[in-house]
Amino acid sequence: MAKKIKTAITPTREEDYSQWYQEVIKASDMAENSPVRGCMVIKPWGFALWENIMYEMNAMFKETGVRNTYFPLFIPLSYLEREAEHVDGFAKECAVVTHHKLEKGADGRLVPAGELAEPLIVRPTSETIIGESMSKWTTSYRDLPILLNQWANVVRWEMRTRMFLRTSEFLWQEGHTAHATKAEAQERTLQMLDVYTRFVEDYLAMPVICGRKTESERFPGADNTTCIEAMMQDKRALQAGTSHFLGQNFAKGSNIKFQNEEGQEAYAWTTSWGTSTRMIGGMIMVHSDDDGLIMPPRVAPAHVVILPIIKKGGDNAEVMESTNALKQALNAKIYHGRRVEVEIDARDIGGARGWDWVKKGIPVRIELGPKDIANNAVFMARRDTNEKKAMDRDAFINGIIDLLDDIQGTLFQRALDFRKAHTLSIDSKEKFYTLYKGATGYENGAFVYSHWCGSKVCEETIKKDLSVTIRCIPFDSPAEEGACICCGNGSKRRVLFAKAY
Amino acid sequence: MAKKIKTAITPTREEDYSQWYQEVIKASDMAENSPVRGCMVIKPWGFALWENIMYEMNAMFKETGVRNTYFPLFIPLSYLEREAEHVDGFAKECAVVTHHKLEKGADGRLVPAGELAEPLIVRPTSETIIGESMSKWTTSYRDLPILLNQWANVVRWEMRTRMFLRTSEFLWQEGHTAHATKAEAQERTLQMLDVYTRFVEDYLAMPVICGRKTESERFPGADNTTCIEAMMQDKRALQAGTSHFLGQNFAKGSNIKFQNEEGQEAYAWTTSWGTSTRMIGGMIMVHSDDDGLIMPPRVAPAHVVILPIIKKGGDNAEVMESTNALKQALNAKIYHGRRVEVEIDARDIGGARGWDWVKKGIPVRIELGPKDIANNAVFMARRDTNEKKAMDRDAFINGIIDLLDDIQGTLFQRALDFRKAHTLSIDSKEKFYTLYKGATGYENGAFVYSHWCGSKVCEETIKKDLSVTIRCIPFDSPAEEGACICCGNGSKRRVLFAKAY
Repeated sequence: MAKKIKTAITPTREEDYSQWYQEVIKASDMAENSPVRGCMVIKPWGFALWENIMYEMNAMFKETGVRNTYFPLFIPLSYLEREAEHVDGFAKECAVVTHHKLEKGADGRLVPAGELAEPLIVRPTSETIIGESMSKWTTSYRDLPILLNQWANVVRWEMRTRMFLRTSEFLWQEGHTAHATKAEAQERTLQMLDVYTRFVEDYLAMPVICGRKTESERFPGADNTTCIEAMMQDKRALQAGTSHFLGQNFAKGSNIKFQNEEGQEAYAWTTSWGTSTRMIGGMIMVHSDDDGLIMPPRVAPAHVVILPIIKKGGDNAEVMESTNALKQALNAKIYHGRRVEVEIDARDIGGARGWDWVKKGIPVRIELGPKDIANNAVFMARRDTNEKKAMDRDAFINGIIDLLDDIQGTLFQRALDFRKAHTLSIDSKEKFYTLYKGATGYENGAFVYSHWCGSKVCEETIKKDLSVTIRCIPFDSPAEEGACICCGNGSKRRVLFAKAY
Repeated sequence: MAKKIKTAITPTREEDYSQWYQEVIKASDMAENSPVRGCMVIKPWGFALWENIMYEMNAMFKETGVRNTYFPLFIPLSYLEREAEHVDGFAKECAVVTHHKLEKGADGRLVPAGELAEPLIVRPTSETIIGESMSKWTTSYRDLPILLNQWANVVRWEMRTRMFLRTSEFLWQEGHTAHATKAEAQERTLQMLDVYTRFVEDYLAMPVICGRKTESERFPGADNTTCIEAMMQDKRALQAGTSHFLGQNFAKGSNIKFQNEEGQEAYAWTTSWGTSTRMIGGMIMVHSDDDGLIMPPRVAPAHVVILPIIKKGGDNAEVMESTNALKQALNAKIYHGRRVEVEIDARDIGGARGWDWVKKGIPVRIELGPKDIANNAVFMARRDTNEKKAMDRDAFINGIIDLLDDIQGTLFQRALDFRKAHTLSIDSKEKFYTLYKGATGYENGAFVYSHWCGSKVCEETIKKDLSVTIRCIPFDSPAEEGACICCGNGSKRRVLFAKAY
């Protein structure tokens, strides 16, 4: 019998992809489930990653003129009802605050008291409460555009939850803008999707397909929802960000009116756009392997860990001094606007120490012992390729930026190659059904470009038969005559099908 | 009749301090009340200030080994009940989530549905939910200390609210630590109070008195609460931060146990410490004047505004070019780790333009017109002193860091002088009562150091008679024999009395 290769994570991706995902998170010490139904605890290693994401995205938002704000957590029920499709979309998953204190009941136990005249909804998203403010702030076309963002927690009561991917409470940013013209709002919708694309590709190293959603997959209340979709290693799609053109729907609901340049009263055109901690779930599933997490350097909380080789009871002063000097030399290097961050792990716990950092996904590990110091060398291991080699210490220090760039690039290219290798064009319904019917576990089929006639019935049939959805109508899908993969009727272009998270 | 001096804010501080405060916020465009009871909207100018506060405090926390995390918004009612004093302290002001969806009622209107088996409390603070995790993470003394912080929104249902000072939802940071020994936890309590002191004094330019709270003013469930107290311009005190030594109370409630170095099972010792957007309220009330907000440079969203003198319909290319060049030259200067931030306001709205920036509290205003450019000069105005003068342009650029430091120092010194001028030692009950009985509006008396015997009855009597409370037992109050200001019994040291926010 062939000996099974030992991996740090059990089960492996092939054995049980879903369980592997949970174990990668656990082994990395990024997060864990909380005792509160559907809510998670984000631990320091996970939260430091989120802070880097916020920092980088903030800079990109600011460049486009967007400014940060903070709006109330609670939304009066009547506000949510101002846009009919919107409230229908969120009514089934709302946390509802009905009381404002606790009092001792008949049995001496505390029970809710002080019933509110109007229930408050813990925000699932903030279009309606922000719309109320925009309405107050908008008198003339000179008050527009309004370009706002907030980083906030939101709650959508989910029945089946999974860390980072789907939790009842999650952290996100939500952008909200109001414009004097339809064209400007449409342009902003695409501009922010482009920011998302650049962030997710350049920082999280996840290649994405950009496109628009079908009517049935739109944000409740939007005229048009655009999205970015990434392929996970189980070939399922993950929606990593959405940007919505809301038309005048919310402006009418919230009464966002202004006097235009011609002196006439008009409703504003609004947009909203969001990304969340879900991106972290995507990052994990795109890059990690059977030894655990792999973090792209541009968002990693730390880039390098130094593991000094310590002699128990011996004199380790020289090794520690050399370790600290190496840390300082690396800290002096600037990688994409941040200093190179270095962890030192001098715990005396044997091989488990190195594995801890493998599982945490730190891009580069350095072992440093007396011999290395004598030779002015370091022993380097790359997390992405598992390459390990002795290197000249100065060459390592001077090459660290190139090395991190190379790791970042390698991760992106690997994910892109993987997606290409699992992307098909299919024109036969039989082939389409055969592919997805056999798709389970790690082998969830592929990204499939097929023709679609545009009918909701066909979309629904495929969803019901195969649990496959139209992820988007890609922007770069060329005009092409064809026959709908479901009904055979005429179609003008291919759309992207996949199983999805 | 003497002509009244015109001020940008009506009413002035003397006329109506409370209303003046609201008007300063409104005129600065930092924040406004929201339609949701007791909740505010923090607008970009206010939120950028909060972001700077978070940025600077994060760095100080990190230096002490604290790392950021995120815990659930919701706390099961049974968790809150784990510490008896704690739940008593917060039961009267809890937002309670009782349902997880909305359904159409008999009249077709949406009503709460899906009642929860156990109500969830929107966190008023997170000791109990974080304690639950600490309990899971703590097995051995090697797992300690645990040093965590989170930036989060919390809700305490307030009946009378005031922007930044007291709102039902507010933003804060809450630190939570667990230690193996009592001494270490007590040391951490004071270490974090020291961080707060340094931040509030060095960044917000607010001098504070550090001390411990009396038993009746302690955090519910704490063994000891330490605090920093600042004097507002109406001579009332504002508690700007608290750090609590929680003893083993929460460790017992949450079962945070570990095996100590001697192999025995023991409960951990915990601390918690918090500051909030309330600090912004304090900053406003300490520094601002009858022309509006004054921001300390170290936390101001922008340091300098350039107001180019524009000719309507004329050729302004040269002025705008010179304006942009000045901005770039200033941006290249580093003020306490951040670049000097510059706003350009080229609106053609006459004198209102300058006043807008006075009211927004920006530290330095620069006017720049063709004559200034010809003379290589700028016309500079300081917000703190109202000093205005023509300056050599290069001298201004090269002196900007010193200028900002001088403004920062001036604000702190002015606040310190003000507090000293309104601080008294009183030994006569009659004098004490006379002072505070006459204290209303802008003239709220003073900070008074008087003797106190230590009894709750005396503390309560003074509170009832005068609305004056013991703000703290100052750390630097020397041992001194005296007679209690209320009952005349023996006392070992003076405590700090004041009316408070």
